[in-house]
Amino acid sequence: MEKRISLAHGDGGELSHRLIKSVFVEAFGHNNEAMFDASALTIPVRDIAVTTDSFVIKPVFFPGGSIGKLAVAGTVNDLAVSGAKPLYLTCGFVIEEGFEISDLRAIVSDMAKEAKKTGVTIIAGDTKVVERGSADGVYINTTGIGIYENGRKPSLQFTEGDAVIISGTIGDHGIAVLAERGELGISVPIDSDCASLNTMLLKVCEEIDDVRIMRDPTRGGLATTLVEIAEDFSLTIVLNESSIPVREEVHGMCELIGFDPLYIANEGKAILIVPNEHKDKVMEILLQFPEGKDAAVIGEVTGTEKGQLLLETPLGSKRLLTRLAGMMLPRIC
Amino acid sequence: MEKRISLAHGDGGELSHRLIKSVFVEAFGHNNEAMFDASALTIPVRDIAVTTDSFVIKPVFFPGGSIGKLAVAGTVNDLAVSGAKPLYLTCGFVIEEGFEISDLRAIVSDMAKEAKKTGVTIIAGDTKVVERGSADGVYINTTGIGIYENGRKPSLQFTEGDAVIISGTIGDHGIAVLAERGELGISVPIDSDCASLNTMLLKVCEEIDDVRIMRDPTRGGLATTLVEIAEDFSLTIVLNESSIPVREEVHGMCELIGFDPLYIANEGKAILIVPNEHKDKVMEILLQFPEGKDAAVIGEVTGTEKGQLLLETPLGSKRLLTRLAGMMLPRIC
Repeated sequence: MEKRISLAHGDGGELSHRLIKSVFVEAFGHNNEAMFDASALTIPVRDIAVTTDSFVIKPVFFPGGSIGKLAVAGTVNDLAVSGAKPLYLTCGFVIEEGFEISDLRAIVSDMAKEAKKTGVTIIAGDTKVVERGSADGVYINTTGIGIYENGRKPSLQFTEGDAVIISGTIGDHGIAVLAERGELGISVPIDSDCASLNTMLLKVCEEIDDVRIMRDPTRGGLATTLVEIAEDFSLTIVLNESSIPVREEVHGMCELIGFDPLYIANEGKAILIVPNEHKDKVMEILLQFPEGKDAAVIGEVTGTEKGQLLLETPLGSKRLLTRLAGMMLPRIC
Repeated sequence: MEKRISLAHGDGGELSHRLIKSVFVEAFGHNNEAMFDASALTIPVRDIAVTTDSFVIKPVFFPGGSIGKLAVAGTVNDLAVSGAKPLYLTCGFVIEEGFEISDLRAIVSDMAKEAKKTGVTIIAGDTKVVERGSADGVYINTTGIGIYENGRKPSLQFTEGDAVIISGTIGDHGIAVLAERGELGISVPIDSDCASLNTMLLKVCEEIDDVRIMRDPTRGGLATTLVEIAEDFSLTIVLNESSIPVREEVHGMCELIGFDPLYIANEGKAILIVPNEHKDKVMEILLQFPEGKDAAVIGEVTGTEKGQLLLETPLGSKRLLTRLAGMMLPRIC
């Protein structure tokens, strides 16, 4: 077989056919047809969740993962935070002419592995090839379908005193990727947190029947995601700065380059807002999982009218946090 | 608002938020949340079809359509040929830094229009921005979910004598796009056939209860799609060359540049294989629709063992057709 992707791999003819068979069908274990056409499914229940995400991360391999692992975990997490059990995934590839087929194979293998781990089936795929210089390696779209099995979606109903929990340290993904790109000037011994959180989050939903909301703080980081929640539901949320878990290496690197870890992307973390009386139980569940071992209660809902996010510093002053603005972190996911 | 897409439009922060609100939410009529997160749905039945397709067509506007119209129609058609009624669509955008926001708006408006026309709802979206030179304008992934309402999927069971029908002239899309790119050296007064076929094809499935198969001959054209069908189901299919509808302009242009219309992409055509005794009824249905006005019976299944596609010329000789190979038509869809 050829070593690199050529335009003919995308023309729908003989080479496309061979690429799909030898790379995708082999890894995903599908028949031909399913990769080309609509896949017919009988889903277990009629209440479903659907989400879509395109991944353009640079570089495609990074400490702790690859665009393949990320494309599965990212979409799985979007479903899981909505309370849905992820079941099916589609994948659409846009590949640059000249891309190494061995790299493509490694990426697809990472997807297959992560899909297996999370229990999702890849049910349909598509491959397009663009000329050299019209993409940068490979971009992947994954669209996920999950089911609401027991009807336990987060309620999106909040009250004063609700606790804000983060499932682990923040900023690991963004800093790992920037370091791998060589943009930090020095090497940082840190892995991306890229991970699928479905098992952990669904366990929380099973045990606690009034989870308020769950969200994964990816692009824009913890602060931007919480600003969105505060605005969408008119909440005042106060974060306690000293309780937010940040790895020392991430903290140091952020100081050095002038970034705020609150705005750095995560790919294996979830924000959970839960009733105050259940926060200990939720923490207990999270701490049982490797993905939740650094979980912490980091703040609380102090009002249900204004729509603002405040950060309380160790000295007791409070400052208003806004969405990420003007910090250029392209292609972080 | 800014005139062009900047990297900050893709960072998940303030500008991303404004772009989504002002371009996508405005056109698709959604609340914020649905565009960011998993969309929760209750689907009418549990038998569903799912398909995914990425669109990288160049140029993004062409006679008869745009990448936006195509991204909806293409995925709608993938569902419709499987016998499913298209209901929901997700869309994922990869946009190059510097892309004109007015063009993006026009594309999104075309998507909204085509979605409305076909009765599908856009339920989730995602936007990524890559640096100048890391994409060419905009790429769109659409993933579609349809339902099998009355259980009338094509049977995929064939017998000798089954009729092969094409719903209209072939090659219009490919030639229109090549002409628009200036690759033909002369202008050709031809529009792409880009169109959603769901209403027409579902009407056929409703009226005829043993449709064998339906497929849309996009990349690779009529011949490649029929080779796939012949191979997948071990059929011998004989096409009657003189009955295949080809516009004079397409025919002439193909002669001039040495292309075979049998291998040129279509974006608003369907192949239908139906029992011989129902071919007249199917033709009658197709001819009622503007999209089917040039439909023709173009061949038949002559055997169910071999897996080959033959073309019978007007002089009575037969030649074996294979998949598209070695004809460079990148970014035709």
